[in-house]
Amino acid sequence: MIRRIFIGSAALFGVASIMGFALRPKKKPLLHYVFFWLKNPHSDAEKQQLISGLKTLAAIPTIHKIHVGVLASTEKREVVDTSWDVSELMFFDDEAGQKIYQDHPIHQAFAKNCSHLWEKVVVYDAIDV
Amino acid sequence: MIRRIFIGSAALFGVASIMGFALRPKKKPLLHYVFFWLKNPHSDAEKQQLISGLKTLAAIPTIHKIHVGVLASTEKREVVDTSWDVSELMFFDDEAGQKIYQDHPIHQAFAKNCSHLWEKVVVYDAIDV
Repeated sequence: MIRRIFIGSAALFGVASIMGFALRPKKKPLLHYVFFWLKNPHSDAEKQQLISGLKTLAAIPTIHKIHVGVLASTEKREVVDTSWDVSELMFFDDEAGQKIYQDHPIHQAFAKNCSHLWEKVVVYDAIDV
Repeated sequence: MIRRIFIGSAALFGVASIMGFALRPKKKPLLHYVFFWLKNPHSDAEKQQLISGLKTLAAIPTIHKIHVGVLASTEKREVVDTSWDVSELMFFDDEAGQKIYQDHPIHQAFAKNCSHLWEKVVVYDAIDV
């Protein structure tokens, strides 16, 4: 009896999975890349303030994963831009999720508290292919 | 008896975990970002050739994860660079893993087969903080 219930459930789960896959194909994530150039790149305090500010953004529900970074000590080749100070990478489900993040009060507070720290910011928004 | 073995094993596992954490703190990943500007951005064939070439790099063992992307249709704000054509993001354990990738035959073959496709490439190498 237990075996029958198990097999029945497994079959039902299999069908549901197939149907789910057919109805909702897995979305390609949206990657939101941001690079910051600080006004005072030699101020560790200001760099830390920006890093701390960026980490508050992780609380915004449409962000699936966030990476905050600084320059790695890789080989200095001509194509490698080493002029920036702090990087941020976020994963969203889609453009709508990224728009919710843009308008979210936590993001607005971050911009209010930290935008005086940078002199330049460059954003790249990419969809996986 | 079984309960005792279980508790003993759990305690041992706990101690091993604590020791493992102390001896080998989790490394912060190295993120290798690359943005490509194609010579012929309106050629879908050439864009696909670059995308396919980038995907071959996933076979290099020091790459933990790879994302190949194209421009997302997010809001066109002043800070968003929408002039590029194809993006690539790779996760490595460290600088050494990234160096192995740079010198790997699969990467060399990719450069040989695809470098005629782009007119500009910009690389950002970041370590998580």
